[in-house]
Amino acid sequence: MKRIMLFTRRDLLAGSAAAVSTAALPAATAAQPAGRQTPGVYRIKLGSFEVTALYDGTWFRKIDGKFVRNASSADVNRALADAFLPPNIVPTSFTALLVDTGKGRVLIDAGTGGQLGPTTGYLGGALAAAGVDPKRIGTVLVTHFHPDHINGIRDKDGAKVFPNAEIKVPAREWDYWMDDARLSAATDAARPQFLNARRIFRDIAGEVMRFEPGKEAAPGIVPLAAYGHTPGHTVYSIASGRQSMLVLGDTTNHPWLFARYPEWQGAFDVDGSMAVAARKKLLDRAAADRMLVHGYHFPFPAIGHIAKRGKGYEVVPTMWQPL
Amino acid sequence: MKRIMLFTRRDLLAGSAAAVSTAALPAATAAQPAGRQTPGVYRIKLGSFEVTALYDGTWFRKIDGKFVRNASSADVNRALADAFLPPNIVPTSFTALLVDTGKGRVLIDAGTGGQLGPTTGYLGGALAAAGVDPKRIGTVLVTHFHPDHINGIRDKDGAKVFPNAEIKVPAREWDYWMDDARLSAATDAARPQFLNARRIFRDIAGEVMRFEPGKEAAPGIVPLAAYGHTPGHTVYSIASGRQSMLVLGDTTNHPWLFARYPEWQGAFDVDGSMAVAARKKLLDRAAADRMLVHGYHFPFPAIGHIAKRGKGYEVVPTMWQPL
Repeated sequence: MKRIMLFTRRDLLAGSAAAVSTAALPAATAAQPAGRQTPGVYRIKLGSFEVTALYDGTWFRKIDGKFVRNASSADVNRALADAFLPPNIVPTSFTALLVDTGKGRVLIDAGTGGQLGPTTGYLGGALAAAGVDPKRIGTVLVTHFHPDHINGIRDKDGAKVFPNAEIKVPAREWDYWMDDARLSAATDAARPQFLNARRIFRDIAGEVMRFEPGKEAAPGIVPLAAYGHTPGHTVYSIASGRQSMLVLGDTTNHPWLFARYPEWQGAFDVDGSMAVAARKKLLDRAAADRMLVHGYHFPFPAIGHIAKRGKGYEVVPTMWQPL
Repeated sequence: MKRIMLFTRRDLLAGSAAAVSTAALPAATAAQPAGRQTPGVYRIKLGSFEVTALYDGTWFRKIDGKFVRNASSADVNRALADAFLPPNIVPTSFTALLVDTGKGRVLIDAGTGGQLGPTTGYLGGALAAAGVDPKRIGTVLVTHFHPDHINGIRDKDGAKVFPNAEIKVPAREWDYWMDDARLSAATDAARPQFLNARRIFRDIAGEVMRFEPGKEAAPGIVPLAAYGHTPGHTVYSIASGRQSMLVLGDTTNHPWLFARYPEWQGAFDVDGSMAVAARKKLLDRAAADRMLVHGYHFPFPAIGHIAKRGKGYEVVPTMWQPL
């Protein structure tokens, strides 16, 4: 009775080595594989609100020694290996958040618009799978002006994707990226981001509402300053009834890197040390208060909790469950 | 410039405290929330195979001091809290696996059939969302005869859910649960499981193929003995080309309990110490070889890797990504 298991590595691979016998399969099973991923849509209740995570895709970002300013490639690759990811590529995923307050629909960040390669741009399909017409989005809130957060405001032809939405952005973010003097002074690396912000916003400038942190930007949704990643980078608290969550935006990029190693400064951080200070403050708070959080670059559904782990933090993903 | 963030706990909750202003929302945003979860469907490629995780639901299992034989309620509740779960309830989720070999479709475990309460029984909807007609499942492989793995073979009226599927089960599992002498000798707690196995299998006994471990049960899929949880509990290696994965069945129930604390014996283990030995052997192997794994009771999509962590193990969920 105590003969538990007799298997070897060879057994585990027997399936690939053996000649595959299919002659006996009934005709009814012949079928084509689906060939594509299912839309990424996941819902939670938050008080009387319904919050839906919408997957926009993953950018398989090839990195070099400069991706993290203050860590070596070897250290970055070790962090990737700890997450069972291959070296030299950071799979950066994008998950926007739709908040249905019962009175209206608020989208937090607008996705990539499919402008980061063929493995991005699924937000529209996810919205459709969620049964939401983009025309019925009433508000788009923006965390910051990096392209992967604002490009989805327009399609590739420049048309508005959410034609009836009021667009609300952090005033400090607007002031930085839309400032012509800063554009003139920008480095070659930064210039495309300044130009991109103009492409998205310039001819709708009159319709874009610029807000200060600390006051409701939509019912139950309060923007909070988290400057550093960009000069106006803003996170959001969502609260309904006795439940709340913290929408972290780009407080960390890939959490197996920047939550586990909160001191790491990404090449994309406008002010690396401010970004680190904001990250530690927010993650400390989230961990201490056991807050439900969303991170735009967390693996879908990008919702979970933050736990302290050694000198860093761990994202504990929420357990998929019925609504 | 160094004024980063000025917010307090009160700010975070301001949204719920403040009077909610909705007067300004455009009419186009008025909408009803979806009110239900999206189907859980997630695909990966494995060599030339397509493997699809299908979410069948979650049983919110109220537990008492006997849920883990050799741990206190306080220890179990601490493990739940580490996973940011409330005390005294183990959310036991069910995710079956569909393997499309290009020649046929193989389902590994059949779900609960919705017979574990209103938050279970989503497998049919997930299959439909995946575009798969149950009539086109050619093979159902079973890990063991606990109700949450076999009940989905029949609907509530007793009809076959997969009418064209060959059903393949571990011979040792069949011999144990279908043995009338064992039924007669069964405790009151175990008797329903013996009777349930008869309900599912008795009138199709001639159609159920009973196999021994170690030989292909379907193309590329090899059963491996992992006895203990039940006397014939069987896991599966799936291999295609140079890729493989290990389907762990009930090697661990909720991983935040039984992977983190591999010595814990569940009240549902027929032989607790054998179950622990099988668990450690399989998780050690999976961790050492960095194998892709599936766990029936892991949080959806129930696919990931196993990392050693202290005296136990951690499940690192796979990152949701395009196919």
